[in-house]
Amino acid sequence: MNGPDFLKSELIPVIAQDNDTSDVLMLAYMSKEAWEETLRSGRVVYFSRSRQKLWRKGEQSGHVQEVKSIYFDCDADAILIKVKQIGGAACHQGYRSCLFRKVDPESGVVENVGERVFDPDDVYRK
Amino acid sequence: MNGPDFLKSELIPVIAQDNDTSDVLMLAYMSKEAWEETLRSGRVVYFSRSRQKLWRKGEQSGHVQEVKSIYFDCDADAILIKVKQIGGAACHQGYRSCLFRKVDPESGVVENVGERVFDPDDVYRK
Repeated sequence: MNGPDFLKSELIPVIAQDNDTSDVLMLAYMSKEAWEETLRSGRVVYFSRSRQKLWRKGEQSGHVQEVKSIYFDCDADAILIKVKQIGGAACHQGYRSCLFRKVDPESGVVENVGERVFDPDDVYRK
Repeated sequence: MNGPDFLKSELIPVIAQDNDTSDVLMLAYMSKEAWEETLRSGRVVYFSRSRQKLWRKGEQSGHVQEVKSIYFDCDADAILIKVKQIGGAACHQGYRSCLFRKVDPESGVVENVGERVFDPDDVYRK
């Protein structure tokens, strides 16, 4: 097994995890091209499903993800990348992690537990 | 936003993270039914894409995942569950985490860095 199996699936889900805090930062997808550029460049490149093209994370905001280590799973259809998150926030909404909505299993109530690091208006509308 | 958006996608990827160690254990998928049973039962239930049915994690092996906390992301299309992994191993191959294949970005060499907790032959072929 030489890497994630892009023959099985053209897009493979990628978990980005903060290398220092172990917080899960986000989930996105990679094409084979994104995977190869990530390995080559040392910065995380996803494939944007909405825009249908390579997504060089942080290209606009400057909040790039530096690759620290890369893993894939037993079935070769999931990827884990430990990253150094430049700027301290992975989420385009300015939160440290995209996974900032917490659900109370009993009541179903959703709480925002995110830590906001930047104001998206400052970063994306300069 | 009241929960993951199963109208956008029938199956939503789920990251299982060890609540104690913060290790990412696995990535699998949930249908709306799996999500609801997970909230109700306090144990993680996935939807198996290969078997096309609910997958009550640990039903056969006994290695269930107890829900500690549940999150979803900014786009409501990814789920994170912090779990207590009973039996100490999430992977059906007996490893603590499914993400045990580490890639060297420069050489492309894949190394097995997994910690084996059980022998699958003992667990699944009794």
